[in-house]
Amino acid sequence: MARETRVHRIAMASPDDVSGITALIDAGDLKASSIIAILGKTEGNGCVNDFTRGYATQSLRMMLGRHVPADDIDRICLIMSGGTEGAISPHWIVISVVETDAAPTGALATAQAITRPLTPTEIGTMAQVDLVADAVRSAMAQASISAADDVHFVQIKCPLLTAERIEEAGGADIVSTTSTLKSMGLSRGASALGIAATLGEVDRDALSDAMISTDVSVYSSRASCSSGIELMACEVLVMGMSDAWSGPLAIDHVVMADGIDLKSVHELLAQNLGPIEGQLTPVQSQRLLAVLAKAEASQSGHVRGRRHTMLDDSDISSTRHARGFVAGLLAGATGLTDLFVSGGAEHQGPDGGGPCAIIFER
Amino acid sequence: MARETRVHRIAMASPDDVSGITALIDAGDLKASSIIAILGKTEGNGCVNDFTRGYATQSLRMMLGRHVPADDIDRICLIMSGGTEGAISPHWIVISVVETDAAPTGALATAQAITRPLTPTEIGTMAQVDLVADAVRSAMAQASISAADDVHFVQIKCPLLTAERIEEAGGADIVSTTSTLKSMGLSRGASALGIAATLGEVDRDALSDAMISTDVSVYSSRASCSSGIELMACEVLVMGMSDAWSGPLAIDHVVMADGIDLKSVHELLAQNLGPIEGQLTPVQSQRLLAVLAKAEASQSGHVRGRRHTMLDDSDISSTRHARGFVAGLLAGATGLTDLFVSGGAEHQGPDGGGPCAIIFER
Amino acid sequence: MARETRVHRIAMASPDDVSGITALIDAGDLKASSIIAILGKTEGNGCVNDFTRGYATQSLRMMLGRHVPADDIDRICLIMSGGTEGAISPHWIVISVVETDAAPTGALATAQAITRPLTPTEIGTMAQVDLVADAVRSAMAQASISAADDVHFVQIKCPLLTAERIEEAGGADIVSTTSTLKSMGLSRGASALGIAATLGEVDRDALSDAMISTDVSVYSSRASCSSGIELMACEVLVMGMSDAWSGPLAIDHVVMADGIDLKSVHELLAQNLGPIEGQLTPVQSQRLLAVLAKAEASQSGHVRGRRHTMLDDSDISSTRHARGFVAGLLAGATGLTDLFVSGGAEHQGPDGGGPCAIIFER
Amino acid sequence: MARETRVHRIAMASPDDVSGITALIDAGDLKASSIIAILGKTEGNGCVNDFTRGYATQSLRMMLGRHVPADDIDRICLIMSGGTEGAISPHWIVISVVETDAAPTGALATAQAITRPLTPTEIGTMAQVDLVADAVRSAMAQASISAADDVHFVQIKCPLLTAERIEEAGGADIVSTTSTLKSMGLSRGASALGIAATLGEVDRDALSDAMISTDVSVYSSRASCSSGIELMACEVLVMGMSDAWSGPLAIDHVVMADGIDLKSVHELLAQNLGPIEGQLTPVQSQRLLAVLAKAEASQSGHVRGRRHTMLDDSDISSTRHARGFVAGLLAGATGLTDLFVSGGAEHQGPDGGGPCAIIFER
Repeated sequence: MARETRVHRIAMASPDDVSGITALIDAGDLKASSIIAILGKTEGNGCVNDFTRGYATQSLRMMLGRHVPADDIDRICLIMSGGTEGAISPHWIVISVVETDAAPTGALATAQAITRPLTPTEIGTMAQVDLVADAVRSAMAQASISAADDVHFVQIKCPLLTAERIEEAGGADIVSTTSTLKSMGLSRGASALGIAATLGEVDRDALSDAMISTDVSVYSSRASCSSGIELMACEVLVMGMSDAWSGPLAIDHVVMADGIDLKSVHELLAQNLGPIEGQLTPVQSQRLLAVLAKAEASQSGHVRGRRHTMLDDSDISSTRHARGFVAGLLAGATGLTDLFVSGGAEHQGPDGGGPCAIIFER
Repeated sequence: MARETRVHRIAMASPDDVSGITALIDAGDLKASSIIAILGKTEGNGCVNDFTRGYATQSLRMMLGRHVPADDIDRICLIMSGGTEGAISPHWIVISVVETDAAPTGALATAQAITRPLTPTEIGTMAQVDLVADAVRSAMAQASISAADDVHFVQIKCPLLTAERIEEAGGADIVSTTSTLKSMGLSRGASALGIAATLGEVDRDALSDAMISTDVSVYSSRASCSSGIELMACEVLVMGMSDAWSGPLAIDHVVMADGIDLKSVHELLAQNLGPIEGQLTPVQSQRLLAVLAKAEASQSGHVRGRRHTMLDDSDISSTRHARGFVAGLLAGATGLTDLFVSGGAEHQGPDGGGPCAIIFER
Repeated sequence: MARETRVHRIAMASPDDVSGITALIDAGDLKASSIIAILGKTEGNGCVNDFTRGYATQSLRMMLGRHVPADDIDRICLIMSGGTEGAISPHWIVISVVETDAAPTGALATAQAITRPLTPTEIGTMAQVDLVADAVRSAMAQASISAADDVHFVQIKCPLLTAERIEEAGGADIVSTTSTLKSMGLSRGASALGIAATLGEVDRDALSDAMISTDVSVYSSRASCSSGIELMACEVLVMGMSDAWSGPLAIDHVVMADGIDLKSVHELLAQNLGPIEGQLTPVQSQRLLAVLAKAEASQSGHVRGRRHTMLDDSDISSTRHARGFVAGLLAGATGLTDLFVSGGAEHQGPDGGGPCAIIFER
Repeated sequence: MARETRVHRIAMASPDDVSGITALIDAGDLKASSIIAILGKTEGNGCVNDFTRGYATQSLRMMLGRHVPADDIDRICLIMSGGTEGAISPHWIVISVVETDAAPTGALATAQAITRPLTPTEIGTMAQVDLVADAVRSAMAQASISAADDVHFVQIKCPLLTAERIEEAGGADIVSTTSTLKSMGLSRGASALGIAATLGEVDRDALSDAMISTDVSVYSSRASCSSGIELMACEVLVMGMSDAWSGPLAIDHVVMADGIDLKSVHELLAQNLGPIEGQLTPVQSQRLLAVLAKAEASQSGHVRGRRHTMLDDSDISSTRHARGFVAGLLAGATGLTDLFVSGGAEHQGPDGGGPCAIIFER
């Protein structure tokens, strides 16, 4: 007897379109009580005033309320990432865990944890780093993943500061920033450092408030953090490989060294799905259940020595530029457009690069 | 004795930064009088109110005025395409033609032509189609390209309608559209159909005002058209292969069937630059002198059956989305970010796809 | 015994913040079953992909579901208008009708009606004009408003076309436009002409599909129409004066001749609230329960002979420009920022101008 | 014999349209050698990547080069402010000074000064404050304005940081910020404090790097500062009243307490142009030669207790929101749309408010 992770990737016609999930439940292909997390790639701007995330979350909670007890909804990680730039296709990724009669053979292992709500003052500080680190440890234990190397992706949804929240907190002096957009970066950065600390990628004692979102040389190779207006806690979803689990699914990851590092992505795909001629064949891409990646504009202002304009564009946030661009690369490689590419990669991979994970059928 | 085309790709720090071109001239590596065209990928929004194109053009003309007689400036095609979404790097592509002592061996052949200024009423109509068709024919003759199949890319810069111009023309009733943004598409579409007619891809008599930018099934596989506020004529640059020319450079092209068609791009690169492991090696990419491609959002609202949101986004023009996304794919394949990707591909390749040409050293 | 209209203007911290309405209900100041309409000014872009309207609507329906029978929710007009440019403050306007013991003295009279759902093919056509005309007539009868002159404002929420809906309808050939943004204008225009026909401002038989959103000389002086992605029917709210009603509230309106017509607004305010020194005093502005206005960029490209750039801006929709600008004028006049200014004023007042109504205590 | 300031406000069809200025020169109505400053309200985004300012500047310099010696061009203040949100009409304000035979009667007095180029490290610091303070003093002396109270407006154009400049300077550690958008605010703030110090509004010794753009309680009531990518020096234009000057023109100013303070503007207009019924009459508005104002979103997130959304909007910069909104108010009051409203009012008036000056015929 062993646990098995199941993954469904489902199209979304709008942020409130949960019909695809409902159809699976109604058909008996998905048991609502087995859902541990739902990731949503929604079509907002992915920045401060992106209400598609809250709208999607509210819609999911209404739908889940018809299938599971109210208390159980709160333990499901609902992680919305806004921004479907370029041809990215809005979609849900539903992750469920079932007990099977199969013997444990080693397979994709997943578990979630949620921190307590943060105060506005804690957002983007070491307090957040430590809360996240605890949550990651707790989720690893629950997923029976003992070695840090077996963790391949940690997805976190974390809060941000708004003008309202800063005022409620008591004003500019006691929050990490007064810029709402900047607070999104600090929050993502603090979450990523919490992951890095737990996975042994950095020494927790070497971290400080001052380096959060500043020292780009420190990062986790497996962190993916999104910030959103609709929550005050940090929701943590750990994904890795564990001998205690069973089933056909596996996960692997690579770090893109920069935003045009197709070579690394190509190697990740080839190692796990077989030789590739330019792009995955339809048969290969059907074995891909999820592509999870981070994208960001390099702070240096350059990619391989050539200037980019993402940081100087006052009409479009650099996070939007980076998501669409990296998604183009990944869509070329995989032949898919329902890619979970999220922006803002502070401490999530090297400057201008980022982690890329795939969940696939072996 | 034969003509030879030379191509320089040069970084641009801002739309008025012509220092890289000046440096080549001063060093004797580029003879100003041999320049026949300068393409510029500038960092504006690529839409109606993109003044980076006019700014770049004015800066080029000031610079050229210091090196060539005033009359000669007007015969140089200055084709600016706005929009450096994602990591696209602003750059100039300077095309010059020199007479050499070498025997004609067959090589990249280039020539330009400029139509008379259009009236606002003609923009986006069959009148523009015919003017462009004549100009393409004229440029082919000048380049000694006799077979239409030997033309691999035709780059056109064409005018658009503004509220001002519509009013000057006499109002809404006698122009093809009152929407400035839509006029850009009609003008690009009419230019592309002019190319298609000359290259034998469509029958000119089967064309009509009504189908311009409407009937997406009719297209040229080698057209690239940008519209800009800074001119009223159409500037045409024909690029192909001709036995009458000499030198190390060649050009080839492919049609991307959709916005994620890496397979076709991969084949184009592999055929001309040798086997590829995921991405061109630095040695291979150094042989690439220019990458010229069109990008657009499919009118169907889908890519390979999956919804995209580009046409429903009222914050960012679909042309900007498409450029950044396709550039990500091309940057992954080539390892370069100074890519001349331009948006708005009406009748330039199939719906959602577009031509992609490379100029390379053999 | 007579009916009385009550109006509450309530702050909104986010599109899902219905706490202000709930507080009034809980305090007994507002009876949920008496609500006939809720207008919401939400903080989205007010264009195609503005999901703040759907999010607000979903949040209202969840809240109302806790207070009134499910069937009754559907008869409440929920009219969301996106776009809080400049200092516009997001807010709800809750309109309720109660039976009182007072004798009818003449007062603000309100009633609502909802058309059947439109097909995508009907949006922006004469079919929509006629459906809306019927609904306006029906609402006038219900409000006991017999003379068209006693109608001072008709607020309509109507549907738009998306790429999805066009495809479902059977494609480009049978819808009024393939541009989602343009469909918003056609839908607003058709709704406004339906109002104009019923109020005797135009002859219904003189109208045609071709003139919708095209012939700017034809308009209603009391129409305010918003289009949104969240509905397929047209929701109509008629507001006027009727002898059959009672209570302290009244409504009046004026037509702004252009976007800077403070003179007309000033006269409207002075006639109903007394002499003004530059701006309403706090005492005067407290008597203002709602300011309802339309704003749009003039198609001529000019305001009083001077060029504006709203129609040539490809980064910001002209509707957003116009809302923020006209709101600045109205905020200056009234001292308020929670103004219900909505954009896109096709056939709603003259080109570049629009109706402005106030609900006030006498 | 006395000096006289002349002011011409001229429409601009695009950033390179200097034809209106040329026409005045050609007609003999404006002597090129008498020009001391040209202000331009150009139609870019007014933020980091607004190249309409540089384009306008380049176009002015080309035009001026045909009329005055090259050395003289550099001493003319060319102050471009991007952003024509709402119905703001792009325009030039040409300020010239002539010697007349008239006796000095007291009139508008103007003079300019330019600091040395700043290093990237100095931008947004006390070094900039002191350089600007010196330049203001120097311009006052040249304009024969002895009392600080007689200065009514100081317009400054100052530099900003780009990713390029930060890298050239040696990286993030030695500049005031790594955010290009934030650098615009710091530069404007430092310039404004330089003005405030010279005018005696603040004690220079009480200022520090840390308070620049942070302590909103400290401000000048007569500062207007724009930052632009096209220069590295600070260009200072002082405008006030002086007994040593002659002519019909005068200047006055008021401080708007917040973004909806029509009352103060109304008083300023009434005091100088006579009683007003809602809006200036055409006769009154013709006497207005220039309206110069600052606009910004209040850091508190509120206007008179009601929330605004400008600081939480990731699609449109708050500076763009504020300009369009305040311009609507000013256009309503004056009947004009060619208003020089510039955004980003750090230390330029109170939080959310700003100075407003008018130049008028007595």
